[in-house]
Amino acid sequence: MNFGNFIVLEGIDGCGKSTQLQRLVNWLPHSSLLQPGQVIVATREPGDTALGQALRSLLLTQDWADQPLQPMAELLLYAADRAQHVETVLRPQLAAGAVVVCDRYVDSTVAYQGYGRGLDQSAIAQLNALATAGLRSDLTLWLDLPVAIAAERCQARGQGDRMEAAGLAFQERLRQGFQAIAAAEPDRVVRIDAAGDPDQVAARIQAVVQQRWPR
Amino acid sequence: MNFGNFIVLEGIDGCGKSTQLQRLVNWLPHSSLLQPGQVIVATREPGDTALGQALRSLLLTQDWADQPLQPMAELLLYAADRAQHVETVLRPQLAAGAVVVCDRYVDSTVAYQGYGRGLDQSAIAQLNALATAGLRSDLTLWLDLPVAIAAERCQARGQGDRMEAAGLAFQERLRQGFQAIAAAEPDRVVRIDAAGDPDQVAARIQAVVQQRWPR
Repeated sequence: MNFGNFIVLEGIDGCGKSTQLQRLVNWLPHSSLLQPGQVIVATREPGDTALGQALRSLLLTQDWADQPLQPMAELLLYAADRAQHVETVLRPQLAAGAVVVCDRYVDSTVAYQGYGRGLDQSAIAQLNALATAGLRSDLTLWLDLPVAIAAERCQARGQGDRMEAAGLAFQERLRQGFQAIAAAEPDRVVRIDAAGDPDQVAARIQAVVQQRWPR
Repeated sequence: MNFGNFIVLEGIDGCGKSTQLQRLVNWLPHSSLLQPGQVIVATREPGDTALGQALRSLLLTQDWADQPLQPMAELLLYAADRAQHVETVLRPQLAAGAVVVCDRYVDSTVAYQGYGRGLDQSAIAQLNALATAGLRSDLTLWLDLPVAIAAERCQARGQGDRMEAAGLAFQERLRQGFQAIAAAEPDRVVRIDAAGDPDQVAARIQAVVQQRWPR
């Protein structure tokens, strides 16, 4: 099995992940990095399986008024989504030789549930280990943007509510979480300055991918 | 908080858990065991919360043809159901002083997912620990019945398909699982001979409950 081609994009809401994931996927075939005929798979967490879609709608649309969704239950639902995604998408695609580019992975859980919501980091680490069965990204690009700028971008595309609901202080804790992860695992996680226009950010990402690409 | 009143019924399909749970709940007020005004709560896993209902229908009715539900994802969904049940039903009711009688709890996961499906027992133990945050039953009644008799009972009430789908060998492994749990934790788990008519079984359960009731 070839586990050298697993790239993840991470960052707070509004950091430009989706845009940059699409650009990276468009650029890769024009780089000299791919093997002949190598397939590129773009995917995301949560939700890029049939189970994930069901859980996503459950997490976002159900009314839990009488029994609010408990933090540990939520964490376990995200882990279930991840386990299904790893076994039915990530591992098979990587084993088949594809390059997989994924919007969010385990570091988002560490940042959101751990740094953001204050859940026990050792519980999160246990669940990530169970859900991934050890599948790690080869390269994680952390798109780093000051929280105020990310909030403006969310506002501009009509998603200001979401950002506001969680609060700027929450987003600031997430950013600190990603910072801590990047500092702890410099071989795997690279900070990308996500300020500036999308072309500039894309160029930064391409430079890092070219430099880090497994030979 | 009073954690002395948590009773669980366990056993293979067709062992008579639901019938005996109802009988136990009906009998308790006529025993001399309850405190004045003490409430009895009958509940079950999976599914006795709003989240649990959604997960139950997801687990039972969704068509996963393209991406069959992975064993680890299934295990994590059951754990999410349990976490929600523990935090929104079991703990609050026990803390309020109720007697809680629950149809299935952590031992079912050990038996079904571990002994039945062969999932890693240490993963199951980790998930049970995370989902329950340490809440254990005070008394677990294992309704033990030979697999062939349980299968006949399922057949008689039109649930033969379910039993057959899983297979008698599977049910036999479950039974061995419950046997192993009861042998390992005799202070918590008591085997009840579930053969014979419901009155006989109910009398056996009442005798054990009376003997084991926390003073």
